[in-house]
Amino acid sequence: MFELNTAKGVCAPVGFKAAGVHCGIRPTQTKLDLGAIVSDVMCVASAVYTQNKVFGAPITVTRNNLRDNQAQAVICNSGIANTCAADGIETAQEMCKLIANVAGISEEDVIVASTGVIGQSLPMDNIRNAMPELKSKLSYDGGHDFVKSIMTTDTFPKEVSCSFELDGKTCSIGAVAKGSGMIHPNMATLLSFITTDVNITSDLLDKALKKVVSNTLNMLSVDGDTSTNDTTSIMANGLAKNSLIDSEDENYNIFCDALEQIMLYLTKQLAKDGEGATKTLEVKVSSALNDMTAKTLAKSVITSSLVKTAMFGSDANWGRILCALGYADAEFDANKVEVIFESEAGSIVVCENGAGINFDEDIAKNILDKDYIYININLYQGQGTATAWGCDLTYDYVKINGDYRS
Amino acid sequence: MFELNTAKGVCAPVGFKAAGVHCGIRPTQTKLDLGAIVSDVMCVASAVYTQNKVFGAPITVTRNNLRDNQAQAVICNSGIANTCAADGIETAQEMCKLIANVAGISEEDVIVASTGVIGQSLPMDNIRNAMPELKSKLSYDGGHDFVKSIMTTDTFPKEVSCSFELDGKTCSIGAVAKGSGMIHPNMATLLSFITTDVNITSDLLDKALKKVVSNTLNMLSVDGDTSTNDTTSIMANGLAKNSLIDSEDENYNIFCDALEQIMLYLTKQLAKDGEGATKTLEVKVSSALNDMTAKTLAKSVITSSLVKTAMFGSDANWGRILCALGYADAEFDANKVEVIFESEAGSIVVCENGAGINFDEDIAKNILDKDYIYININLYQGQGTATAWGCDLTYDYVKINGDYRS
Repeated sequence: MFELNTAKGVCAPVGFKAAGVHCGIRPTQTKLDLGAIVSDVMCVASAVYTQNKVFGAPITVTRNNLRDNQAQAVICNSGIANTCAADGIETAQEMCKLIANVAGISEEDVIVASTGVIGQSLPMDNIRNAMPELKSKLSYDGGHDFVKSIMTTDTFPKEVSCSFELDGKTCSIGAVAKGSGMIHPNMATLLSFITTDVNITSDLLDKALKKVVSNTLNMLSVDGDTSTNDTTSIMANGLAKNSLIDSEDENYNIFCDALEQIMLYLTKQLAKDGEGATKTLEVKVSSALNDMTAKTLAKSVITSSLVKTAMFGSDANWGRILCALGYADAEFDANKVEVIFESEAGSIVVCENGAGINFDEDIAKNILDKDYIYININLYQGQGTATAWGCDLTYDYVKINGDYRS
Repeated sequence: MFELNTAKGVCAPVGFKAAGVHCGIRPTQTKLDLGAIVSDVMCVASAVYTQNKVFGAPITVTRNNLRDNQAQAVICNSGIANTCAADGIETAQEMCKLIANVAGISEEDVIVASTGVIGQSLPMDNIRNAMPELKSKLSYDGGHDFVKSIMTTDTFPKEVSCSFELDGKTCSIGAVAKGSGMIHPNMATLLSFITTDVNITSDLLDKALKKVVSNTLNMLSVDGDTSTNDTTSIMANGLAKNSLIDSEDENYNIFCDALEQIMLYLTKQLAKDGEGATKTLEVKVSSALNDMTAKTLAKSVITSSLVKTAMFGSDANWGRILCALGYADAEFDANKVEVIFESEAGSIVVCENGAGINFDEDIAKNILDKDYIYININLYQGQGTATAWGCDLTYDYVKINGDYRS
């Protein structure tokens, strides 16, 4: 395991500057709403995106810019998603040009992203006018301002980094993520930007990103709504000077393990900060026919509004878990299912062989009153396992989303 | 159009008795929790069921009893779903036997259903002891007690009937439904029992039921959770003495139209009584590539928690509608979408060609403040249309489901 560090975020790897400023997309003067990350040198890069057929203009532009698997900067705003806006492509392209001018790079080497309300145009004057300040603030300590600039309904910033050795060289990965509602990623998720100074080919960087995201961010659900703007990108600038990772060797595996730990941390942080959440839920499905079956079942349980409200109420209503398993598009034997609730207060079996067993409701309630709940589901059919993360469904989720735009 | 009558419910057709009693499954003395419908003569019958792979024992028993397409009685309890209980099949079969003894019919001619908490065993002593009272109360006016006996979190009973003429004979259809949470039917829905005195073959009765349910109850979603016990049954006893409907002729079409109107009424009533609902939502998708595409898209919008909370807050946040269309598994051109909000206060276009247009937020808010909201989505691609019904997502949904079992 790697020691995680929450101090430096995307600036932890060598050669990455970052910044965040208030440009005026958001009304509150103190809310940063425009950020950038710039690498000192060209990076190999990859990204995964939402599968929503309605997607933001920044995704079109980023996808195009990453066709050569290279990037040197990220620019991102919060407040407006630049999705379903008539001038979306144009403004996303201009954002690339603006940060490219600041960094002295090509506008085609920029990853651009936006998050916020769908259907409004970006106030480009504000963004243009903010560029001198953004340029002056870019620094090797700017990661924390960057993460603050991309937050929307997030209640705390999510950033993390870790270091490890390859060929005796110290390498680092840093990452940030934002998002607390409209979270039910598929293939990609919310906004997350990852930096690393590892020296790796673009093919293996891409492979590592997709593999890790499928087990971390893609197993997260706050509300079952897949956003139009989900983007997770990674840039590797090679400045750690390890020998190039160009095969799936031990160094590649170390890199993947570190990346997975980083993304697992962010996934749990995102679940914890789900809109209105009071509890983090971790659903683990074991002994399924195969991993894919386990994933489908775990995601169905983590997405169920009825399971999520029961957890909010510390109600050991395991029948809703069986119900959510049953309507998932996956095979299992309903007569073998075992369900166990677990938290720091202990664990309790509530269902065996698909049927209820007598259990002490007070003990169960005590377990479910904690703020990190494990729902362990054993299917007794095969070797497949999967874990999904999410949160409870609360009054505050309704409050936050009943009038998000005001 | 047929005139709908809300006075008689399942007893409106000739020859159907019904009753409801309190047997003690539910603690409150005044809450009826066991009901029955008995036809004077044998009926042709059909039913559709949940597609959840975890399903109640009553469904297994009913499916078996209806293999000969005949039934003469319904027995149903509320409070316990008889699902995931070790003795489920046994107790469901005993319920059939008990009402068969009361009615003097075969236990294999009974439709049995249960609704309530999953994972508990039925208290059969209570049910056995209540049979004399149930028998004494069975009457041609008992429909209203029956519907009260099957309610769970429903806040009002849902029953309706209509009459029409076939061959100069007066025919009737009566129906009841219950359900307000765990409602996202697929193939069948919640609990609904339909009676008719029409003389029709079992094949055409079955065909009519499936056709009508696919456009009514199957287009309803309260919370995206498909219950384990959804069952909709229809019994036709032929006592109206119209000439047998044995082909898809004009009489068949009149019957289907009447049945559709009945089920449409119940669907809207169920949406209105969605757990915690303050508003009914009707999502109509028009000019889709085909009807199936329209259905998939309409169901995706009606199921979105973010759309539902926005409607609760009277927030014209149409971007969430585009988002929900985009993650549905259906083809459409995101650049052609038009969205119109409508209510008794008027209508307003908020999105054209997939992009936002300037609209008066105050007018929109005024429209969305009403309690029946139409969300009209035009895709400008083909002839496909579909309508889906649901409700907003409110604090009370969370409250009701945070501690359902207590």
